Amino acid sequence: MIDFDSILGNVRRGAPLVHNITNYVTVNDCANILLACGGSPIMSDDADDVEDITSICGGLNINIGTLNKNTIPSMFLAGRRANALGHPVLLDPVGAGASRLRTETAAKLLDEVKFAVIRGNISEIKALAQGASGTKGVDANEADRVSADNLDSVVAFARAFSRKTGAVIAMTGATDVIVDLSRACVIRNGHPMMSRITGSGCMLSAMTTAFVVANPEQPFEAVCTAVIAMGLCGEIAYGRLGASDGNSSYRNYLIDAVYRLTAQELKDGAKYEMR
Amino acid sequence: MIDFDSILGNVRRGAPLVHNITNYVTVNDCANILLACGGSPIMSDDADDVEDITSICGGLNINIGTLNKNTIPSMFLAGRRANALGHPVLLDPVGAGASRLRTETAAKLLDEVKFAVIRGNISEIKALAQGASGTKGVDANEADRVSADNLDSVVAFARAFSRKTGAVIAMTGATDVIVDLSRACVIRNGHPMMSRITGSGCMLSAMTTAFVVANPEQPFEAVCTAVIAMGLCGEIAYGRLGASDGNSSYRNYLIDAVYRLTAQELKDGAKYEMR
Amino acid sequence: MIDFDSILGNVRRGAPLVHNITNYVTVNDCANILLACGGSPIMSDDADDVEDITSICGGLNINIGTLNKNTIPSMFLAGRRANALGHPVLLDPVGAGASRLRTETAAKLLDEVKFAVIRGNISEIKALAQGASGTKGVDANEADRVSADNLDSVVAFARAFSRKTGAVIAMTGATDVIVDLSRACVIRNGHPMMSRITGSGCMLSAMTTAFVVANPEQPFEAVCTAVIAMGLCGEIAYGRLGASDGNSSYRNYLIDAVYRLTAQELKDGAKYEMR
Repeated sequence: MIDFDSILGNVRRGAPLVHNITNYVTVNDCANILLACGGSPIMSDDADDVEDITSICGGLNINIGTLNKNTIPSMFLAGRRANALGHPVLLDPVGAGASRLRTETAAKLLDEVKFAVIRGNISEIKALAQGASGTKGVDANEADRVSADNLDSVVAFARAFSRKTGAVIAMTGATDVIVDLSRACVIRNGHPMMSRITGSGCMLSAMTTAFVVANPEQPFEAVCTAVIAMGLCGEIAYGRLGASDGNSSYRNYLIDAVYRLTAQELKDGAKYEMR
Repeated sequence: MIDFDSILGNVRRGAPLVHNITNYVTVNDCANILLACGGSPIMSDDADDVEDITSICGGLNINIGTLNKNTIPSMFLAGRRANALGHPVLLDPVGAGASRLRTETAAKLLDEVKFAVIRGNISEIKALAQGASGTKGVDANEADRVSADNLDSVVAFARAFSRKTGAVIAMTGATDVIVDLSRACVIRNGHPMMSRITGSGCMLSAMTTAFVVANPEQPFEAVCTAVIAMGLCGEIAYGRLGASDGNSSYRNYLIDAVYRLTAQELKDGAKYEMR
Repeated sequence: MIDFDSILGNVRRGAPLVHNITNYVTVNDCANILLACGGSPIMSDDADDVEDITSICGGLNINIGTLNKNTIPSMFLAGRRANALGHPVLLDPVGAGASRLRTETAAKLLDEVKFAVIRGNISEIKALAQGASGTKGVDANEADRVSADNLDSVVAFARAFSRKTGAVIAMTGATDVIVDLSRACVIRNGHPMMSRITGSGCMLSAMTTAFVVANPEQPFEAVCTAVIAMGLCGEIAYGRLGASDGNSSYRNYLIDAVYRLTAQELKDGAKYEMR
């Protein structure tokens, strides 16, 4: 059993400062969800700035969603500095498999930076782990959907990738699979409406970084809790939708739900199994 | 008569993937309105990334709102690749006429990329078509307002620009004028409150691209429907405003209305005439 | 007594066009709050674009939140051009003290550009004024909190910095201190919830620029009114929170409150004293 009181309490009490090198599409949502969960965001992506900034933070969230020739070197500089300082680093390989630049940048980051967590949809993780391609933009391929039939093989695949990278692997989608060297957690929280807003994955990555920073002794449980929390808040937000509400209000309700989230809600609402 | 059932249904069923090279001010709203209407967004603006990304998409939306020396070459690369693949490309010349860089970049894009649609306010379109200047920032000049008195000349002007570029010309404002080589559509949907939020034009351009991608046989009708839809949703959103609501809630309600929009609402609410 | 009718009325009637070189985290909120208060935003940060754009505006807001090697030269170009044209320029030194690049860039901007207003939290202002460091990311240090005990010394410190720069100094936090060469205003509006959203400082800087542009004869009163307005709207937004609302809805309510703000609300709700 995950001790939600402890994990969430550590985030709320610790107010972890997270350095984000992230895309300009969802960056505001990432900042607000970090504040919602109890963390504190700082964004910086210039090569001359990132080492100083990451040094004063507790962890680093690297998201390649709108990578470019100025921000890519910054990802390496910040990643190496965070490694040197022992700060956890998370990789969100947005669109890996969809372009050569994204796939190769993510691969090089894996070579040069030690990641505590790699979080993406299953297509992105496959592209990273196998060099496979075929990502449909920033969404997972239908063919990659996790099901009862392929769950064992998905876990085995993620385990192999965790062994290779030393990272907790978080493959999120309708069913989320979180794997480290010895454990696996299958999570069934969430709501399809989460795919009708931009940034649910990016926000989860930012929030996960905060959870890992605040729970250095339990990175696996911290990742699982962040993923459960996001899914549960997706359900809570859906329950709040009125007759005229659409995806824009849903985004607000999702962040609001994270802001209001309690350990009791997590205990009552979590749908997960350890394997 | 526009067949709204067909046009909107094609967007919802087709889930067109749209590549956006757009400004960082309204990019999140553009992504969310694409999801709201039934499409799917991807943003990418690095020269090493855009050709791969546009290749997996159905269409390309180029918005020069915060153009810079890194993204300008990407606009040309992506535009030419999209042309080669037969993908429709939309130009939103934000602020053309307000600076030399914007006016010249838009003019060069017109020279080197074939656009399916050019959408802007009347001052921006005039700056493009006539090399005229005098745009008041990103808003249209009052002197350029479309009225009963100048409607015929506005249509004739847009017709000439459509002939020159081969594009559907969409000049939007209090009255919208959509023109192709043989038809013109005058639309009177919308609400003044739409000018009190940032991004209503940018969102319309993103959404219009999705409509055109999903309706390749009827680009003119697709543009008209997107413009009508945005105006109608602006009216619906206004009707939803409570006593404490302002422009931020209005933005949410506008995107929400697009999310909830039905063909029946379009049939009942559209205010347009073909000329 | 500040003449709120006049100050706010000038903003609403004048619709000041403000050029923003700002970070990509909160830029959308800055645009929407400028529209909410009655101004009009334009964003442009390329070196080839900023001089033209700032020339058609009434004032310039420079925010170094996500400064980079492309936007830093643009800040100088735009700042000097705005100076030459007599447009007021505001500096928001986000994260000064947190990295060498931020501290040095802000210092160089102070050397080469004449600012009408400098607005930041007290730690950022100290970093600028004293070359002191120790900023905790983008938030003020607890040790820097303004209290009854240190208020006189804070005012004296700000007065010295105002003398050195010629700018109105606005140090905002739980207690706001606004100082020019001869006056000081202490403001106690606001709500702690404002620190749970990203961008409340950035939005205030954007809005303050609009207030100063629209009130060229009364820059000090304009700054005070903008700061009071933001704090009061933070209180109004808090009062509107429902049982499920969190920081995302709060952000919307805050901007909404600015949109709805009346001079009467300012008169009734302002908590300030001149010293």
